[in-house]
Amino acid sequence: RRCHHRSPAMLDVPFLPFSAFLGALGLLCVAMVGTWCQHWRGGFSLDGSSRTFNWHPVLMVTGLVVLYGAAALVYRIPHTWSGPKLPWKVLHGSLALGAFVLTVLGLAAVFCFHNSQGTPNMYSLHSWMGLATVLLFSCQWAAGFGAFLLPWAPTWLRALYKPIHVFFGSTILMLSVASCMSGINEKLFFSLKNGTMAYKLLPAEAVFANTLGLLILIFGVLVVAALARPSWKRPDSDSPDSRQVQDALGG
Amino acid sequence: RRCHHRSPAMLDVPFLPFSAFLGALGLLCVAMVGTWCQHWRGGFSLDGSSRTFNWHPVLMVTGLVVLYGAAALVYRIPHTWSGPKLPWKVLHGSLALGAFVLTVLGLAAVFCFHNSQGTPNMYSLHSWMGLATVLLFSCQWAAGFGAFLLPWAPTWLRALYKPIHVFFGSTILMLSVASCMSGINEKLFFSLKNGTMAYKLLPAEAVFANTLGLLILIFGVLVVAALARPSWKRPDSDSPDSRQVQDALGG
Repeated sequence: RRCHHRSPAMLDVPFLPFSAFLGALGLLCVAMVGTWCQHWRGGFSLDGSSRTFNWHPVLMVTGLVVLYGAAALVYRIPHTWSGPKLPWKVLHGSLALGAFVLTVLGLAAVFCFHNSQGTPNMYSLHSWMGLATVLLFSCQWAAGFGAFLLPWAPTWLRALYKPIHVFFGSTILMLSVASCMSGINEKLFFSLKNGTMAYKLLPAEAVFANTLGLLILIFGVLVVAALARPSWKRPDSDSPDSRQVQDALGG
Repeated sequence: RRCHHRSPAMLDVPFLPFSAFLGALGLLCVAMVGTWCQHWRGGFSLDGSSRTFNWHPVLMVTGLVVLYGAAALVYRIPHTWSGPKLPWKVLHGSLALGAFVLTVLGLAAVFCFHNSQGTPNMYSLHSWMGLATVLLFSCQWAAGFGAFLLPWAPTWLRALYKPIHVFFGSTILMLSVASCMSGINEKLFFSLKNGTMAYKLLPAEAVFANTLGLLILIFGVLVVAALARPSWKRPDSDSPDSRQVQDALGG
């Protein structure tokens, strides 16, 4: 009996070209959020002004979306399926740690901006959803480190926790993309208020940032789809014949 | 070789109690969005005022999230796995059609409100993402009807299109939940502007609607998770032994 259902030939995209496309799309998102903040929102600084806030979208898109997506996809690279697993685990954990560090700096930027302006923190749905995402991510990283990288973690714990880790891996990315959408939307309402530059008149900045939002959305959907695709999953180490099945199916 | 990996015993939730919980959560979301609009936003009317707008969140949450979620989960009910498939297909298509009708009425409500107020349509990222979601949903419904309900659709077409339909089924729900998040967020910024009722001071309405947002998010994540869970999937009709394997695994 076949396990991984063969996709019709026209849908058989190999992983590596797909991930190269995803990488280019992710870099485009980072470049666009940087351009938005630099060209229309006054650039970057650490003085507590709105130029400090500008680090927030850049760090969140770079860390919690693009770098996070790269970390999530490590085990989908066919090279990781043979040979020792530890180096790939370390790569996965390191990329996720890098994403987490950028995320925390991104939070620090918005808290610093709010505090220096006397604006309350943590009142909007965007902030609630975003903080829930970051808290889940911190639990995910700590639990992943404890279960998969500490050499004394028992096998039953790894087996128990692995499907939970995989599920929250995709879920956290969906939540972070949803947070980006509400964040870009509210920032445009805050920033584009007057005269011919009102958001509702769709000035160039609004078209640019809306397009950025849609590209982030497409990036997130494609990463989650790649993670879910059966033929791109690492064959299980407990079924020694799965590698050959995978090969036979062209996966 | 096992195909559906057995989850550890403590994660073996049966589908029906889980879906009863999901149903209660969905009804809570509908009740809360109705309460928000009735109690804090002035109730409902068809006069083009903000009371016409109030139909928009209620119809979108009811149609594009809760009823859509119910439609998506039809094939996860174990009763649908044996006997004739056509009645379940008709149920799935009818629930999705009901969701689509509510969605179109929800769009009509916001267009009517904007037009009677002289506000432009389709400028915010929320509106772009929301309209993209509705357009994808209309394509999904039409293609599903053409491929799975028209009796003369060829088998190769059904086999080709099925994984695409399944993929977009989850994707459209994620997009509609992300649209709800940005919509609730922007509505609260619009409505809560002055004095002690400002959004940033977290009045009762803000806490209530933020909580509604998080519940919609949890509903969406749980539906997508239920759709993805291997042991809850309908065993494939092309592998006659899969039903027995499913039973043996307690799926």
